[in-house]
Amino acid sequence: MTVLILTSEQDVTADMAVAKLHERGVPVMRLDPADIPGKAVLSADYAHGDFDGHLSANGHVLSMGGLRSVWVRRPGEPAAHAAHPTQWLTAETRQALYGMLYSASTRWMNHPRNADQARYKPWQLRIAHLSGFAVPPTVITTAPRVAQQFAQEYRDVVVKSASGPPPDDPELALPTTLIGPDADFSAVAAGPALLQRYIPKRADIRLTCVGPRLFAARKRAAPGQVDGRYGDTGYSWETTEVPDRIAKSGHEYLTLSGLAYAAFDFAEDEEGVWWFLECNQGGQFGFVELETGQPIAEAVALWLAQDRRAPEGRW
Amino acid sequence: MTVLILTSEQDVTADMAVAKLHERGVPVMRLDPADIPGKAVLSADYAHGDFDGHLSANGHVLSMGGLRSVWVRRPGEPAAHAAHPTQWLTAETRQALYGMLYSASTRWMNHPRNADQARYKPWQLRIAHLSGFAVPPTVITTAPRVAQQFAQEYRDVVVKSASGPPPDDPELALPTTLIGPDADFSAVAAGPALLQRYIPKRADIRLTCVGPRLFAARKRAAPGQVDGRYGDTGYSWETTEVPDRIAKSGHEYLTLSGLAYAAFDFAEDEEGVWWFLECNQGGQFGFVELETGQPIAEAVALWLAQDRRAPEGRW
Repeated sequence: MTVLILTSEQDVTADMAVAKLHERGVPVMRLDPADIPGKAVLSADYAHGDFDGHLSANGHVLSMGGLRSVWVRRPGEPAAHAAHPTQWLTAETRQALYGMLYSASTRWMNHPRNADQARYKPWQLRIAHLSGFAVPPTVITTAPRVAQQFAQEYRDVVVKSASGPPPDDPELALPTTLIGPDADFSAVAAGPALLQRYIPKRADIRLTCVGPRLFAARKRAAPGQVDGRYGDTGYSWETTEVPDRIAKSGHEYLTLSGLAYAAFDFAEDEEGVWWFLECNQGGQFGFVELETGQPIAEAVALWLAQDRRAPEGRW
Repeated sequence: MTVLILTSEQDVTADMAVAKLHERGVPVMRLDPADIPGKAVLSADYAHGDFDGHLSANGHVLSMGGLRSVWVRRPGEPAAHAAHPTQWLTAETRQALYGMLYSASTRWMNHPRNADQARYKPWQLRIAHLSGFAVPPTVITTAPRVAQQFAQEYRDVVVKSASGPPPDDPELALPTTLIGPDADFSAVAAGPALLQRYIPKRADIRLTCVGPRLFAARKRAAPGQVDGRYGDTGYSWETTEVPDRIAKSGHEYLTLSGLAYAAFDFAEDEEGVWWFLECNQGGQFGFVELETGQPIAEAVALWLAQDRRAPEGRW
């Protein structure tokens, strides 16, 4: 039974988990969907009333009946490395590859269907609330009046992007930004704005969930720091305990969202409350593991290595 | 409690269901996501430990607490009608709109998460088989040798696109095409090919499933006809009975795929067996209703009008 890892060639985080799988003698196939067709070959066979499929890459063959689990790490676009790439070739290859993998009875970290939904930030806030996390008051609106009322009610608010920075070249940094109630909100009518109550924080928290295993790391914040992703505060990530109610909420979030892996970001306020900021279903863990020594890659490997099958036709 | 229909302005099929909803006095909001921001305004509020949201369009306001159901018909791309459309504005608007709708406790026809997966043709074949439908032997491969062996085993095979015709301009028709075992299969290495045993058919069958209600229509095929979508055979759609085992399989398919609506295409062979060809989760029904008089729009309206709520946080 083989673990399939969908990722591009350069992926040190995947390397860490692959090393742990090798230690345990678990067969692994590493595949970049960009290499189909070409370096990798696929065949899915719905020919005898049943289903089987095969992937061949680097001289190895993986049968869908022997598929233990799939780790969707950083896969390339299907057919991106083809001799003559086109949009249509990508669409056909995506159908062939993922259609075959969806047909297999296997466990996913994470199933693309659940991953896609989990990327919706407003939905994350709702699921976080239903899971019992503390969620900072937030509004997403195209109505300038609503944005202004929100800023007047909460005074210190931050404005964020929901989808991430614009896909421009050169890349544009878009840090979370603090604004006051007197800002000009008229531009909200031209594009939805996400406003959130500013949480003055004494630390950033990263909670990494790997199936049932939780790892919490904490990094002290510089006074008045708004977005920890930019600038160096001199502090580093340190392991911290996972409070019981956070553990319960983390498990509930994974259940509601159908995820096997998730990386949560929280702001810890002066009273020690962890405020949910976001949940990244594909969040990196390499930097946390390197700074804290938390065995996250090993936990990923253990989850992928399990022998439990998914029920037939389910995900 | 209001029914929300996501579709573009020109949509006569939606008009048919809207008329039925009006007859029953069920409030309806019709919205094209392309009109946000601009003609339509949205606000989602995660501000008081709970969630509420509002959509305003054409002078009407719909609260998420008053959302009965969502029909995803033919929605435009979010922000497509904006004064200055960009990829990023579309991404932000998609997050705001669908993130808000996913946060609501409502029923979907069909939830985009399930619809996306249901578009994978190879997966359809697997789910069809698990549901008990007869599925023609099929292979999807990038290996010329596998394609050739398949053609030699089954002699008369058709080749199809999995993702649909290439998105070229002018549009390229890509009918299902009959090929023999002596064809040159070398090009399969450059892009996945879907080959299927040719089913000599005496009729095309369209099975439309609307929640638990099933409507079958039959159109006689011209001798030797391969793809019923092209050319006029002179025959028209007529209502036919839904065999019990087909009904059972139809219900099972909808359950396994999480769909509330689906349009199935079958080929009826000389022995009367219905062979599963594909299942279109967004398949048109207007033409079938017009030719057969089957009350499909009314069934859609009745499904959308139900008062049953979805469980909190589920879809």
